[in-house]
Amino acid sequence: MRKFLIVAIFFPTISFTQSSDSVVIRQIYDEALSNSPVYENLRYLCKEIGHRLSGSVGAAAAVTYTKQLMESYDFDTVFLQPVMVPYWVRGKKEIVRIVDSKAGPMELAGIALGNSIGTGPDGIRAEVIEVGGMEEVAELGEKVKGKIVFYNGPMDPTIMQTFRAYGNAVRQRASGASEAAKYGAKAVIIRSITQSLDDTPHTGSMRYQVNVHRIPAFAISTKAANRLSDLLKQSQVEVYLESHCEMREDVLSYNVIGQINGSENPDEYIAVGGHLDSWDVGEGAHDDGSGCMQGIEAVRLFKALNISPKRTIRAVMWMNEENGLRGGREYARVAEETAEKHIAAIESDRGGLLPVGFTSTGPDEKVEKFRSWGPLFRPYGLYDFSNPGGGADIGPLSQQGTFLIGLLPDSQRYFRYHHTADDVFETVDRRELELGAASMAAMIYLIDKYGL
Amino acid sequence: MRKFLIVAIFFPTISFTQSSDSVVIRQIYDEALSNSPVYENLRYLCKEIGHRLSGSVGAAAAVTYTKQLMESYDFDTVFLQPVMVPYWVRGKKEIVRIVDSKAGPMELAGIALGNSIGTGPDGIRAEVIEVGGMEEVAELGEKVKGKIVFYNGPMDPTIMQTFRAYGNAVRQRASGASEAAKYGAKAVIIRSITQSLDDTPHTGSMRYQVNVHRIPAFAISTKAANRLSDLLKQSQVEVYLESHCEMREDVLSYNVIGQINGSENPDEYIAVGGHLDSWDVGEGAHDDGSGCMQGIEAVRLFKALNISPKRTIRAVMWMNEENGLRGGREYARVAEETAEKHIAAIESDRGGLLPVGFTSTGPDEKVEKFRSWGPLFRPYGLYDFSNPGGGADIGPLSQQGTFLIGLLPDSQRYFRYHHTADDVFETVDRRELELGAASMAAMIYLIDKYGL
Repeated sequence: MRKFLIVAIFFPTISFTQSSDSVVIRQIYDEALSNSPVYENLRYLCKEIGHRLSGSVGAAAAVTYTKQLMESYDFDTVFLQPVMVPYWVRGKKEIVRIVDSKAGPMELAGIALGNSIGTGPDGIRAEVIEVGGMEEVAELGEKVKGKIVFYNGPMDPTIMQTFRAYGNAVRQRASGASEAAKYGAKAVIIRSITQSLDDTPHTGSMRYQVNVHRIPAFAISTKAANRLSDLLKQSQVEVYLESHCEMREDVLSYNVIGQINGSENPDEYIAVGGHLDSWDVGEGAHDDGSGCMQGIEAVRLFKALNISPKRTIRAVMWMNEENGLRGGREYARVAEETAEKHIAAIESDRGGLLPVGFTSTGPDEKVEKFRSWGPLFRPYGLYDFSNPGGGADIGPLSQQGTFLIGLLPDSQRYFRYHHTADDVFETVDRRELELGAASMAAMIYLIDKYGL
Repeated sequence: MRKFLIVAIFFPTISFTQSSDSVVIRQIYDEALSNSPVYENLRYLCKEIGHRLSGSVGAAAAVTYTKQLMESYDFDTVFLQPVMVPYWVRGKKEIVRIVDSKAGPMELAGIALGNSIGTGPDGIRAEVIEVGGMEEVAELGEKVKGKIVFYNGPMDPTIMQTFRAYGNAVRQRASGASEAAKYGAKAVIIRSITQSLDDTPHTGSMRYQVNVHRIPAFAISTKAANRLSDLLKQSQVEVYLESHCEMREDVLSYNVIGQINGSENPDEYIAVGGHLDSWDVGEGAHDDGSGCMQGIEAVRLFKALNISPKRTIRAVMWMNEENGLRGGREYARVAEETAEKHIAAIESDRGGLLPVGFTSTGPDEKVEKFRSWGPLFRPYGLYDFSNPGGGADIGPLSQQGTFLIGLLPDSQRYFRYHHTADDVFETVDRRELELGAASMAAMIYLIDKYGL
């Protein structure tokens, strides 16, 4: 705010320009809050198609739906960009069962982690050993041999930026299985990465290290984790695990792209969107149906208001963010190959929640210019332009020097729903979703007008 | 922010003080985010007691529950303050039915407005005439005679501060019946005051003018309002209305009060809380179970952290905000009578949603002091201290010069739930609720330490 005020005092013409910009931005928000189809579009994606893990029938349906949607809005060009994606399938529902403990047998709310191998129909039965994090496994060494390692590291509830707390806690999910396998563990169970205390397990991707024996990985709900931990304080606990998941051959899928061609610099691009794939539970409403529908809406707002951009603005639905990032990588590769110069890319992948700002990654002078627009967003509740960041799918574009921007919604509610059966349409608020779309459209308007 | 920085430069000792304050405030938020029972307390109020309109069994149960809860936290003094309240009962479910239109008969989602008289078992059948607002009724004059006036003024979706949009739209609900009755209307139907487009009607209080014939008043859902309006464009429409509500004799109820006595100035008070009554649909989760539970939690946080206040800090559950404000008036009257000097009062009555700041009402120099604390709240997402306001229940305290403060949550989601069957526990987020309680506790800490 201070920076803007100082600039305005010394160069009053900029103040006039900003005032005309504020009129256009007001029109963008008014249109989004009054006439936007974004909420109904998300309802369709969630309720008629549902979840859409890469390679699944749902993902294929979502490709067709979003292509048709952008065609129905009469975007100048709508096309599919082929990309081979991993195809992981969960199979029959998992079993996580305490078979022997001081309190007797007990079912625990559990779910296989994405990319994990299955136990097969015979399952795995073993004693459980609890650890607080990855370091403890190395300390225990041979003591974990033949056992199921239970990673019970919590997500810190006192950290206000919940994505930071998530980042601290997620390592055990991503890498815990291979770490435990090095010392002979039979399987791993992870405490769900959430600050909520409930009985819904959270899935998410894990990775196997090369040359390390692969063992199955599960998550259990935070309530189940507390129960298991309590029992382990009283006595030895044996658990039976069963999962039928497997990674199959890669399959053909698509990034879905729709654009309005630029009137002056059509070979300069500004991309906006989210990832079309989701986990195979719930409806992927916040993660990331919201970001996809907001990306399309950001472009539709230009058409609805008859704003003709100088550059080409593009809505992109990237495929396979959750368990491979193939779509984001292929998009950047093709952009490089065909010399599509992306001056900026904006991703919305933190839920369809109340926007409070934008993150950004780029050279200092561009970040400074970007932040100077902050005051224009203040009337709409966006005040935080201070954090670095962008989005997983647009990350690969940094190789060609693209300025990366992430829509930043308030993060307090996000990890209630993240990667669970609870990530459904009903948890998204219409106005919050609309405000996110309008914010991205307004940012594109400024980037298109002034460059970066 | 700038003001604070300037002060800090000229008086470095203040900067040190603020730094020690920031440590205490961090402890308050950490405790609320880690160990708070506020969410479980709200669950009990909503799920075990439910709605609690003044005079009802639910209201009586809520009085007992909140008294026992504060006793269980070992507050120094917990007591009930008697107050006579209106006792309005809805009776058998209302009927709002199109009986004659081009599209045939049709039920509309409707609900009687609070304080309205009923139609009685014979109901009212009449032609409907639509108006956009109160002014149009006077313009139509005799044309409304014998008809049902349908107020279809919408709540403006483009206004970011939704309480302002509500304020603009609510006049037709509060005063529309008497205005229409002056010209001989038989009854009124109001478009629900919400920006949502759905099939849930919103109740809320209405008032009859003295010496004007009383006619029944209903609200219908926004979808029903659109349907009715569409039909009226095509042909004459007749509607049948039936309601069984009535205002009974005043009954005895209570404000519920619990406090920690001040160690240095026990005769100076800082009050915090919300209103315990709710409408008789839903669970009054956001309106205002959240504010009540946050008020108790704000005081509990002092005990949990062993912070001994200089002044007496008091959690207050005011009774009868919704349809009379008797509790707030009686509280201020007793405070005046017994010379309880309230230096400040904080109300949370805008939902258990993400706190973004505080409103305030008082003399300029106090407002300035209050705003100078803003930077201490910035790490917790509170950035807006600019708006006037307080809360309905604490308003009467302004007569004794009390500085009035309102917790200000983001308002985008509030009017989805307000005064409906959808205002239930599940729509409240644990972290947002906790942050509101912590914010009020931190503000009380500063007021207690530095005065106002």
